[in-house]
Amino acid sequence: MSSIKISDKAINRLTLYHCILSDCLRKGVDSISSTTIAGLLRIDDSQVRKDISLLNNTGKSRVGYDVKELKSSIEHTLAFSKVKNVFIVGAGNLGFALAKYNNFANYGLNILALFDNNPLKHNVEIGGKKIYPIEDLKGQARKMDVDIAILTVPYNAAQQVTDYMIEAGIKYIWNFTPVVLSVPDDVQVWNENLMGNFFQFTYGK
Amino acid sequence: MSSIKISDKAINRLTLYHCILSDCLRKGVDSISSTTIAGLLRIDDSQVRKDISLLNNTGKSRVGYDVKELKSSIEHTLAFSKVKNVFIVGAGNLGFALAKYNNFANYGLNILALFDNNPLKHNVEIGGKKIYPIEDLKGQARKMDVDIAILTVPYNAAQQVTDYMIEAGIKYIWNFTPVVLSVPDDVQVWNENLMGNFFQFTYGK
Repeated sequence: MSSIKISDKAINRLTLYHCILSDCLRKGVDSISSTTIAGLLRIDDSQVRKDISLLNNTGKSRVGYDVKELKSSIEHTLAFSKVKNVFIVGAGNLGFALAKYNNFANYGLNILALFDNNPLKHNVEIGGKKIYPIEDLKGQARKMDVDIAILTVPYNAAQQVTDYMIEAGIKYIWNFTPVVLSVPDDVQVWNENLMGNFFQFTYGK
Repeated sequence: MSSIKISDKAINRLTLYHCILSDCLRKGVDSISSTTIAGLLRIDDSQVRKDISLLNNTGKSRVGYDVKELKSSIEHTLAFSKVKNVFIVGAGNLGFALAKYNNFANYGLNILALFDNNPLKHNVEIGGKKIYPIEDLKGQARKMDVDIAILTVPYNAAQQVTDYMIEAGIKYIWNFTPVVLSVPDDVQVWNENLMGNFFQFTYGK
């Protein structure tokens, strides 16, 4: 993707700016100042300007940044248009929520299929994508050129299903279970650590 | 809660250690070394020891940390036992997933009720909790002594529902929508920025 070094925190903020800009577009707002963005996120104005300076953005006038241009600068820098082919493994409520999340496509996430061990769900379509048995992971992974698996199974199935995914050649796992997975060196796991995020929010409050 | 200063990143890691320790307990493993924890998370051994030194933990022997004691040290430091009363606002798939998330109670999250604008869902129970109309937020907030609202409505309803929540006196919002909410100064929002997390994971890959 890009060669610019951007810190994790800056990436996080840039995607939030992107949410704000998307909202502006929906409301027909054409330009926005760094102060407005900073105010909504309760961060420093200078931080916003610094983050935006990381982008190759040129659309700034006296009244502020051009919303469309700034939005597309963020998309370009973070490579939203690069397609990431995704399996959702675990078709429970969370898997369904992610499969139907209307924003995923905007971020280049292309959901190929879902997987679940409940036979009642097999061949059902969610958000236009079919649910397959977990056992089909290997076969479908061979057919479909998957990049990332999103893991949304119950915690007591997490490691076993991970072992299946590894056998199927999955190299990137976005883990929504509260289990720290054991994986070989060439597999990367991103823990979507909800409770860690929650305690960051509430700790000391 | 506690008076010890702990960085956001350390809080995040401590909750992941807690996941590992819970898994050990389920498997009947009594003690664990910092090397094992570090290996599972692919971080530095010394980082794990440093984080654990923030806790008031005493159960360390030659073979490693006592799993039960380390687990309860983390729970104590991050105040898991302090009850946080929660409304889930938006009873779609994500709201359902969170309402049924069996781990929430372990972290002190006490879900009081869900809210949704779909009349077909009203009075239905999810995970033992009733779904009320959004209009009942104010009345129920008065009755139930709620601390935190988890926002899981569709993005196009996010700001309007937030305005309702503010009217109902909600002061802490855990926002799962991809919308940056506009709130008064005395209301705090924690953005569960899924796509920001995702791009941290994939950026440059």
